[in-house]
Amino acid sequence: MRVFGIDCGTEFTGYGVVEVDERARMPKLAHVAAGTIRLSKRDKTPQRLAQIYAELSALITLHDPEVVAIEEVFFSANAKSALKLGQVRGVAMLAAATCGRPVAEYAPLSIKSAVVGYGLAAKEQVQYMVVRLLGLDVAPDSADAADALAIAICHIHTAQSLIAQGGGR
Amino acid sequence: MRVFGIDCGTEFTGYGVVEVDERARMPKLAHVAAGTIRLSKRDKTPQRLAQIYAELSALITLHDPEVVAIEEVFFSANAKSALKLGQVRGVAMLAAATCGRPVAEYAPLSIKSAVVGYGLAAKEQVQYMVVRLLGLDVAPDSADAADALAIAICHIHTAQSLIAQGGGR
Repeated sequence: MRVFGIDCGTEFTGYGVVEVDERARMPKLAHVAAGTIRLSKRDKTPQRLAQIYAELSALITLHDPEVVAIEEVFFSANAKSALKLGQVRGVAMLAAATCGRPVAEYAPLSIKSAVVGYGLAAKEQVQYMVVRLLGLDVAPDSADAADALAIAICHIHTAQSLIAQGGGR
Repeated sequence: MRVFGIDCGTEFTGYGVVEVDERARMPKLAHVAAGTIRLSKRDKTPQRLAQIYAELSALITLHDPEVVAIEEVFFSANAKSALKLGQVRGVAMLAAATCGRPVAEYAPLSIKSAVVGYGLAAKEQVQYMVVRLLGLDVAPDSADAADALAIAICHIHTAQSLIAQGGGR
């Protein structure tokens, strides 16, 4: 299974692709790709959204994942920042839908639990564990890319426990 | 000038196209089209966003407006509903950008002022004035379509006052 994780943000949107061979006797997570889409503050919102959409669509097509995973809800400080984040999230989900990939959503608590084993883990702990779990030599190029990898890992863990429980997907 | 107004909503998204011949001695608003994109509650969010994107892109291409106008900010009751509205708004702005049309944003107060002459006008007053200003025989098929026409009218009024002031666009 190959999963494309997205960590949406109004300035930086991270992506991370993780793979696991479920038929292996000891399934091992493998890092495929990760990076950050950086938006120019000089661009207007529609152009920024068009950039995220174009880049995510190209990356999803390139890496050909079975599923796209994103963070479920961001309890924003205020309605205005939630609206702006929603705009990016809408375009990210559209990119997945246009590429014909299902979207799985995970709450921040589930993502942290899956990666660190503790739902209230700090951002730095998540990044540290992502590097360890994937056996990376260098850390991802941004905290957003690390978070996107964490989201992808969370999906793989969730799918694996469903299979272990006989639920499947 | 032809303007494509969009009233974004998580269930119903209204659109309305209004035209004005600026070279006429007495510029008169003309109704071109209006309607409502209704989303099925049974569909998942990515599919709903894909439907809005596909329909808006097709409608913008069909009606060939100079500009797309949307409501500026919706002060939502809570961050969760703002996030959901943001997702629709993001996809609407992306449709405009993909079709190569600039996006103009107007605050609810400006829209009501432009149509009713009073920023705190009730929804029904906006609908009544949209019907009168466009000389419609029947009201638009939904309050959302009427609001979208109001947004388009607001853009035309704003652009005309800019021209009258010698500012242009």
